[in-house]
Amino acid sequence: MDYKDASLPVSERVEDLLERMTAEEKIGQLIQPFGWKAYTRNDDGTIRITEEFKSQLMEGGIGSLYGTLRADPWTGVTLANGLSPREGAEAVNEIQRYAIEHSRLGIPILFGEECSHGHMAIGATVFPVPLTIGSTWNTELFQSMSRAVAAETRAQGGAATYSPVLDVVRDPRWGRTEETFGEDPHLVAEFAVAAVRGLQGESLDSHDSLLATLKHFAGYGASEGGRNGAPAHIGMRELHEVDLLPFRKAVEAGALSVMTAYNEIDGVPCTSNRYLLQDVLREEWGFDGFVITDCGAIHMLTSGHNTAGSGEEAAAQALKSGVDMEMSGTMFQTHLHQALEQGRITEDDLSKAAGRVLELKFKLGLFDRPYADPAWAERIIGCKGHVALAYQAAAEGIVLLKNEENTLPLDPNVGTIAVIGPNAHAAYNQLGDYTSPQPPGQIITVLEGIRSRLGNTADSRVLYAPGCRIQDDSREGFPHALDCAAEADVIVMVLGGSSARDFGEGTIDLRTGASVVTGHTESDMECGEGIDRSTLTLMGAQLDLLQEIYKLGKPVVVVYINGRPITEPWIDEHIPAIVEAWYPGQEGGSAIADMLFGDVNPSGRLPLSIPKEVGQLPIHYNARRTRGKRYLETDLEPRYPFGYGLSYTEFRYDGLKIEPAVIPIGGEATARIRVTNTGARDGAEVVQLYVSDLAASVTRPEKALKGFQKVFLKAGETQEVIFTICNEQLELIGLDMKPIVEPGEFRIQVGPDSTSGEVASLRVEG
Amino acid sequence: MDYKDASLPVSERVEDLLERMTAEEKIGQLIQPFGWKAYTRNDDGTIRITEEFKSQLMEGGIGSLYGTLRADPWTGVTLANGLSPREGAEAVNEIQRYAIEHSRLGIPILFGEECSHGHMAIGATVFPVPLTIGSTWNTELFQSMSRAVAAETRAQGGAATYSPVLDVVRDPRWGRTEETFGEDPHLVAEFAVAAVRGLQGESLDSHDSLLATLKHFAGYGASEGGRNGAPAHIGMRELHEVDLLPFRKAVEAGALSVMTAYNEIDGVPCTSNRYLLQDVLREEWGFDGFVITDCGAIHMLTSGHNTAGSGEEAAAQALKSGVDMEMSGTMFQTHLHQALEQGRITEDDLSKAAGRVLELKFKLGLFDRPYADPAWAERIIGCKGHVALAYQAAAEGIVLLKNEENTLPLDPNVGTIAVIGPNAHAAYNQLGDYTSPQPPGQIITVLEGIRSRLGNTADSRVLYAPGCRIQDDSREGFPHALDCAAEADVIVMVLGGSSARDFGEGTIDLRTGASVVTGHTESDMECGEGIDRSTLTLMGAQLDLLQEIYKLGKPVVVVYINGRPITEPWIDEHIPAIVEAWYPGQEGGSAIADMLFGDVNPSGRLPLSIPKEVGQLPIHYNARRTRGKRYLETDLEPRYPFGYGLSYTEFRYDGLKIEPAVIPIGGEATARIRVTNTGARDGAEVVQLYVSDLAASVTRPEKALKGFQKVFLKAGETQEVIFTICNEQLELIGLDMKPIVEPGEFRIQVGPDSTSGEVASLRVEG
Repeated sequence: MDYKDASLPVSERVEDLLERMTAEEKIGQLIQPFGWKAYTRNDDGTIRITEEFKSQLMEGGIGSLYGTLRADPWTGVTLANGLSPREGAEAVNEIQRYAIEHSRLGIPILFGEECSHGHMAIGATVFPVPLTIGSTWNTELFQSMSRAVAAETRAQGGAATYSPVLDVVRDPRWGRTEETFGEDPHLVAEFAVAAVRGLQGESLDSHDSLLATLKHFAGYGASEGGRNGAPAHIGMRELHEVDLLPFRKAVEAGALSVMTAYNEIDGVPCTSNRYLLQDVLREEWGFDGFVITDCGAIHMLTSGHNTAGSGEEAAAQALKSGVDMEMSGTMFQTHLHQALEQGRITEDDLSKAAGRVLELKFKLGLFDRPYADPAWAERIIGCKGHVALAYQAAAEGIVLLKNEENTLPLDPNVGTIAVIGPNAHAAYNQLGDYTSPQPPGQIITVLEGIRSRLGNTADSRVLYAPGCRIQDDSREGFPHALDCAAEADVIVMVLGGSSARDFGEGTIDLRTGASVVTGHTESDMECGEGIDRSTLTLMGAQLDLLQEIYKLGKPVVVVYINGRPITEPWIDEHIPAIVEAWYPGQEGGSAIADMLFGDVNPSGRLPLSIPKEVGQLPIHYNARRTRGKRYLETDLEPRYPFGYGLSYTEFRYDGLKIEPAVIPIGGEATARIRVTNTGARDGAEVVQLYVSDLAASVTRPEKALKGFQKVFLKAGETQEVIFTICNEQLELIGLDMKPIVEPGEFRIQVGPDSTSGEVASLRVEG
Repeated sequence: MDYKDASLPVSERVEDLLERMTAEEKIGQLIQPFGWKAYTRNDDGTIRITEEFKSQLMEGGIGSLYGTLRADPWTGVTLANGLSPREGAEAVNEIQRYAIEHSRLGIPILFGEECSHGHMAIGATVFPVPLTIGSTWNTELFQSMSRAVAAETRAQGGAATYSPVLDVVRDPRWGRTEETFGEDPHLVAEFAVAAVRGLQGESLDSHDSLLATLKHFAGYGASEGGRNGAPAHIGMRELHEVDLLPFRKAVEAGALSVMTAYNEIDGVPCTSNRYLLQDVLREEWGFDGFVITDCGAIHMLTSGHNTAGSGEEAAAQALKSGVDMEMSGTMFQTHLHQALEQGRITEDDLSKAAGRVLELKFKLGLFDRPYADPAWAERIIGCKGHVALAYQAAAEGIVLLKNEENTLPLDPNVGTIAVIGPNAHAAYNQLGDYTSPQPPGQIITVLEGIRSRLGNTADSRVLYAPGCRIQDDSREGFPHALDCAAEADVIVMVLGGSSARDFGEGTIDLRTGASVVTGHTESDMECGEGIDRSTLTLMGAQLDLLQEIYKLGKPVVVVYINGRPITEPWIDEHIPAIVEAWYPGQEGGSAIADMLFGDVNPSGRLPLSIPKEVGQLPIHYNARRTRGKRYLETDLEPRYPFGYGLSYTEFRYDGLKIEPAVIPIGGEATARIRVTNTGARDGAEVVQLYVSDLAASVTRPEKALKGFQKVFLKAGETQEVIFTICNEQLELIGLDMKPIVEPGEFRIQVGPDSTSGEVASLRVEG
């Protein structure tokens, strides 16, 4: 028997290999150094393997490398010193070849990469952030996008991605709100399944498949005060019903990797949480993959959570609780051997973890086909098909929040249009966090999108002014912006936020709008990982700028590009048309422009509630009924509700029928409704099914999304939309913590958002 | 054997009585109609028992009456139509006599009253609200105050109080923040014990003792978004460690009544929570009293929580879960009989609950001495001793937040002093929620306190202007206020909030400051039960008024009278002296005046953190270490920390010694420190002990208050303060949910507030 024999079953190969390995070599499989430290670039463009990498390889080996192609300020990799797609594939191959040829057992390295909305590498297609994806309510589209991401990443040798993010966001002060699919467990779960299918494909060992990593397990979206990594205050029933649901669905869909969360739940850190990692994940759900920590999470056990008094104790706690690999920390590497000697762990513990890592490597085909094809990488990465997908995802994810006085769509023969604001032409600001710098021309800004759209319209003229920055209060750009606005017939204000890290490429001259290459930019980042906010208003001078321009009395459209809800009552009350794009990715500017001019009929719907003010938080739509009824200053209704979004056409709902209207426990009913496009334009509608359990043994949400379908309807067309209602839609977690469907009345709502639609009744009889 | 035989043990009397009772009569013991509906007042001042009361008495009897002497808009009882202390005692006696003489078994009624900070009845002494009490850090004083409250209430026949409120407040948006002792479980627990000792006294059947009711059980202070009655999102470990601790300590101290909370915890309403009411309260803690619901809480099971599909189901759920009496709802009365017939409950269930009610009535001596002494009521209620206690509690609870440039204390020969602001002379605004209207002269406002203090100072002149109201934006009072301020040498601005309900007595003319009797006031209530806020800033035109006055360039002192923290950065930055009194009760004006002029040296310390802005919430000092580190706009430090408060003198801490520095598990150490009054004035200091567990099996608070002593030190005096550190200070709730002391290092901090002091180390060895 030989582990190198591809004809043997994986389990036998793993067993054989484990038998040959020393304890050190097993520990080696559980570590994941930074990939960008494994090589440097020679002057001639070739790469050189670092001594650090070589010596680590000799000392027991390296199971995985993290972010080998990652380019951002953290890695120090820039457009100037980074690798092209072909070069990246070649570099990864060289590292892989070195590892295979220079280690005792020739175990290939698992290259793990960040690919939440595109591979975080130079040249890769940058898709919209998950919050925009959540706004598409189109899981098929996301599945296609996920396959594209997998293909681009695997083409450069990346075999695992640290996505999808399945956190259910509860508090939009959280800087990672943009990375989530929103506030609803069902919606997140549907995207979770699409992600797993899209990333992992039919077979993990395919040249275009990636190992999906579900994160962050668990409760990370429920952190105290929206503060990143803060404790989750949550009961067990809510944890299972809300936070764990998307993970369970994704595991059922075949996900084979899970990442632990930084936070603790009720005093127990997720990274040493035996209940979550063993009882729930492996025993209850039958998860058969491996568990990796978040970056540095084991260190937090000794400094932060303080549940371990020493490195050995922390490493042992994590391993014993069910962690198989440490992402980019040094605790396993430094302390596991001693933990073994101290008897805190056994060699069997190491074998179990190493065996899981190796099993995945075999399943990924890394032993049999360890190398990427640089030519294919060059061809597939950023290919037209992927760019088209990025465009479509942006186009479907843009949410039209307000459109009065027929402000939108704009007439392409508008005359002069002024495109103003800090996000009008700041390419990186529309990408979101976890992105790398990209070559000139890859990212289309709103300004460029509008210029491109109006290219053939001889009568139109496009003016541009940045006006101000995202965060600082300087008004030095106001005069130029006001000049542009004064000349315009219509003004598009592109405001919002930024999760762009400083890629060192320059800044914009506020007085002229010209780009200035400085080599260093004060980052305008106000969102993204670790950037939580205590207010949700626009920062800096943005509102002032808008108010100055509004005084001109011309038609104004506001486009938000940002990573979390914005609360600006004045804008909601005064500006006739408001568009929320979140971070729409590299094609965002094209999609926004096409939507503004009516080529795209908006079909995005909010995946989270937009509050009126920060003091209303938390404000998710699916709260329990007994929440207090109002604050003195305001009610508990959001400014824009979950599921909401306008279209350029109108849809009528009628004829909701539940058949049968009475079912036994375990039975199934269908909800049918006719949806008609009653307007003059073709368009897509997101038909949403909400279920309310009118009385139950435990309290239930006021209503809960339990199904949705995005349907395209030509002007005047009617379609019947059918939902199945069965256990999944009706069950709850009972007093004994087990799922159960209880007899009683259920209110069924089918409509365009969480606050409206047709209503009917379903009775379950015991 | 006869239950009327006072010589028999209570258990035998209960048993005998139960055997004689029908199911209807047992149900009758479990109900509590509104007491103010039991009688009306005749024209000659005598009272008449209502037919409603009589017929209810005939239909099985009445176990208890709620709020028989309560005067407020809800009851419709006013100063004009209400009863004096003597009349109240007589009325209660008449009702009691009727019940005893006209019911089959002559069972006396338990009169339950609201007495959180004084009996909620006309003429009763109105003490400061619990938040001011929490600020005194003086539990002995509170125990004396509780005895006074018990005496005043029992003197009118009230035998049970619906206090103390033991909710640990987590979010000051909550309107009931004022009703709590603050954010720390240890601090609340110490006041809980004092309340039980003070209210219940040596023996419940004493003429000056009351049955204390611990509320709200449980998690009511942890409601979502600070919204009253909203779900508590909380894990079991945190629930036990934080929310349940004060209840457990109060039960250990002998409390015999507990009220269920409105809210749910993780899907299970507290009013039908068998785990809380049976497993924890009775089995784990050995509670031997009875359980009452909050007002109308059983109704919420069918409409709100929706855990019951019918009234019978709701009533049965509550009873079966461990509820013995329904406060002022109609569910038990209407549905328990049918629930019995339907087999949802048994007669044994009824006997158990009725038996507990009767047992308490026997213990209270109601069978043997059912009547109050009206003459004693007249003498004791509002007596000088109680007024002095109310003054002392206010004086010790006022917190001096800021005092720069030696602004305070004021020189009594100041010249002209302007007392300005909506709370300068609005008597009811300083009382807080759960208070009744009081006869003229009983409440001393800040204006009156200052006038009285300066009465003998020939050179001083006191001007007054309201300036504005609490909530509305009218500036019509600005000119008069500015005129007064312009004439003054120093200005005291009395700002804040109000929990005063509209007692229908009139309003204040903003232009002159004169009282206007209108018979109706638009209530300025912005705090209190059901009045939650989404912002924590001053309302209305208050800040504007202050800023206008500040422009005059004269010395300005701000005094806050209000029920929850105020976040006003401009005030914190610009005003040299800021005083927080919360709602200081009827003697508040005297105490504040004496504190302003230096007769009282402030010794109040904050029982909760005052945030910088609402977006920082939650922000209690004892958070876990892993909370996120900051928001983009602000850090996570409060404006004023827990435990903080200034004095007119200064205290030095030195020589902290822990002896022994190493103890075994279960051992005991002492912390000794020298505290010296280094200033020129006598004063009291609150010496605070905080413990940090540096590493443990579960995460621990950054630090936690584990002891405090209020010591009075003459100028120059040194005192050694000694704390005992034992299991109570060191234990945690382990992974198996059991309390445990674990070996390891503990950081011991002793100092003047939660952020400073001397630090030493204690080691526990396994």
